Amino acid sequence: MGEFLKVFSFQEAVQGIKDNFAQPHMEKVNLDQANQRILAEEVLSPEDVPAFNRSVVDGYAVRAEDTFGSSESLPAYLGFVGEVIMGQAADLELLPEQCCWIPTGGMLPAACNAAVMVEYTEKLSDDTVLIYKPVGPWENIMLEGEDVKKGQIIFSAGHLIRPQDIGLLASLGITSLNVFKPLKVGLLSTGDEIINIDKKPLTGQVRDVNSFAIAAALENCGAIPRNYPLVGDDFNILKQAVERGLSENDLLIMSGGSSVGVMDVSLDVLLSFPESRLIFHGIALKPGKPTMAVKIGDKMVIGLPGHPVSALMVFYIVCSPALRQKPLLTIDARIKFNLASQSGRDDFVPVKLIEENEEIIAVPLLGKSGLMSILSMANGYIHIPYEKQGVKAGAKIKVCLF
Amino acid sequence: MGEFLKVFSFQEAVQGIKDNFAQPHMEKVNLDQANQRILAEEVLSPEDVPAFNRSVVDGYAVRAEDTFGSSESLPAYLGFVGEVIMGQAADLELLPEQCCWIPTGGMLPAACNAAVMVEYTEKLSDDTVLIYKPVGPWENIMLEGEDVKKGQIIFSAGHLIRPQDIGLLASLGITSLNVFKPLKVGLLSTGDEIINIDKKPLTGQVRDVNSFAIAAALENCGAIPRNYPLVGDDFNILKQAVERGLSENDLLIMSGGSSVGVMDVSLDVLLSFPESRLIFHGIALKPGKPTMAVKIGDKMVIGLPGHPVSALMVFYIVCSPALRQKPLLTIDARIKFNLASQSGRDDFVPVKLIEENEEIIAVPLLGKSGLMSILSMANGYIHIPYEKQGVKAGAKIKVCLF
Repeated sequence: MGEFLKVFSFQEAVQGIKDNFAQPHMEKVNLDQANQRILAEEVLSPEDVPAFNRSVVDGYAVRAEDTFGSSESLPAYLGFVGEVIMGQAADLELLPEQCCWIPTGGMLPAACNAAVMVEYTEKLSDDTVLIYKPVGPWENIMLEGEDVKKGQIIFSAGHLIRPQDIGLLASLGITSLNVFKPLKVGLLSTGDEIINIDKKPLTGQVRDVNSFAIAAALENCGAIPRNYPLVGDDFNILKQAVERGLSENDLLIMSGGSSVGVMDVSLDVLLSFPESRLIFHGIALKPGKPTMAVKIGDKMVIGLPGHPVSALMVFYIVCSPALRQKPLLTIDARIKFNLASQSGRDDFVPVKLIEENEEIIAVPLLGKSGLMSILSMANGYIHIPYEKQGVKAGAKIKVCLF
Repeated sequence: MGEFLKVFSFQEAVQGIKDNFAQPHMEKVNLDQANQRILAEEVLSPEDVPAFNRSVVDGYAVRAEDTFGSSESLPAYLGFVGEVIMGQAADLELLPEQCCWIPTGGMLPAACNAAVMVEYTEKLSDDTVLIYKPVGPWENIMLEGEDVKKGQIIFSAGHLIRPQDIGLLASLGITSLNVFKPLKVGLLSTGDEIINIDKKPLTGQVRDVNSFAIAAALENCGAIPRNYPLVGDDFNILKQAVERGLSENDLLIMSGGSSVGVMDVSLDVLLSFPESRLIFHGIALKPGKPTMAVKIGDKMVIGLPGHPVSALMVFYIVCSPALRQKPLLTIDARIKFNLASQSGRDDFVPVKLIEENEEIIAVPLLGKSGLMSILSMANGYIHIPYEKQGVKAGAKIKVCLF
């Protein structure tokens, strides 16, 4: 190798991937396909919402002035002139001291400026309504454009589209959107000791956990994973596999055997490509030190540690934020017990969340590297920054959920 | 109608739906299709993990006893007899005071009971290794079966499968799983004033927001939504649409025009089916009082309020927990300002989460019913139970994220 490289912080690693990786292209999708996608450009409102003044209650459309001073003991007497029909223009003409029935969502007649809830009224006869409570001007009315104004920025580029956003877009008549294409990511497990999961491991062998776990994590990020056949530590076969993986995807994630030798073969293969450039090799974090990224042409290969727990943790800590997809959610919790950490290194510890005395408590899950069952008990991870030597029991801490 | 019904609490409504709705069937899926699915039965481990004692460090496999008393100034001298190769059985035979190289994950030779990290060793010559630090018995070794024991329950039925679970299942050689089939849910918007979203509303008309927003919310629950054409308030046409929706789905969700009249037509249609039974009509919650559920044969129709904000809130509060899919995540926050509430009714208020002084603060989003933009600003909702009259600024409160 001969290259000298400083060990990156995990933040530098995230930035290194971001800076050297072309953003995915955009594509137009219909609104019913837009849920959980990322907007590729901002969205402006094409119109005012609502398009007309509408009642937010079932009751009577009135002039507010006609109800002033009314009370239980001294109701206002208003003339009844008909009703507003849902879905139709309100073309009733009302004179002073007249009212009409209006359903929730109904259009307010031009002569009115308020609605009285039916609870505070009484229909005395076919042509008289009693009002027992005054309303102020525009009370119980949603004004034209009050929800959204025409030309207003509704969502910025990069926004993750959720059901409530779909609802707002539907209400604005926006039927399609430009969103980022999902990243296509190839997954390549390497190492002579890795076997397919349907095989029974002989002594010394381990099943290919990473292809499956990382594929699922990629799906949760909105990417499209594709698994490739296992490759051993042979330079030429590995090189062919990398070539294929790069040509068929935007990005290739490799996870190597954990031994130093296997990592070296992978790195030699990656650096043998003519347009290759090492972005980083080694991150000052635990777990996950042996992580690397190599740019090849306009694509990239990320090498994750071979240990399944390390590989998935590094994916969440470094890959997921770099690939600008859905961020992990972060919540507050208190840590269950003292946790020591080595300064000069960012430590990430999987935690299980429990509830004690109505508080959310993060229980660190400690165990030997490679204990997949530990990670399966976890709801998220905590981060002990490199300048700290640990966290005290009961301290408040951020938990990144996965 | 003529039926008298008490108004349900939202918990009774959830239970009412649960009790009257057949659980979805199970299906077998391959592991790479299992992410985010719900297990339909418990999973037992078919084997011990790991299947052999393995090193968790790169270094030298030793007998711990041979390292006792060693130090920087007085290292132990061990004979070097070769190396354990990844993926191969460790068949080296070691005599006392001998050692061999072992990579992380490598199989521990039978004669050894510990591994020393390479950092605390020095290869003096081809046949001698210096050990500068003692190790205890089984230090740096993951024991056979230490991760998972054969026959142990790994996951219970009802468990939501996440990437880390996929990893554990892959490591156990489990290649397929029985999961619940996704629910098929038909969506039917009714009401003469509702128009397709690509149309420009005439005065009094509103676009069909609910079909889109609820479909997206169903997708996030793991269900498969299907939108049906809009139906007006005509009894016969509506009945045909309900028949079709029920025959093609497990469940039908209707959202009606908001007026009382429209709800009545829907309810009349539903109760006109021979095997129909009203589960509830009206829930003591805000927003969303006019919600109903009718059992028809072994299927069910849920009627949501017509207002988009109410419809989506009720979906999250009542439908989502009842349909036994992914629960919404709940986190702790402090409420930004005093919030009054009417006792005798469960209030649900959308909130936006912000961070202030390293604390997560929930800002209630108040607005007139129907303001879809309010919901689009929200990250979740808070619940003010019926016995409370409000929440004080700064109080700790649970936020249900959506």
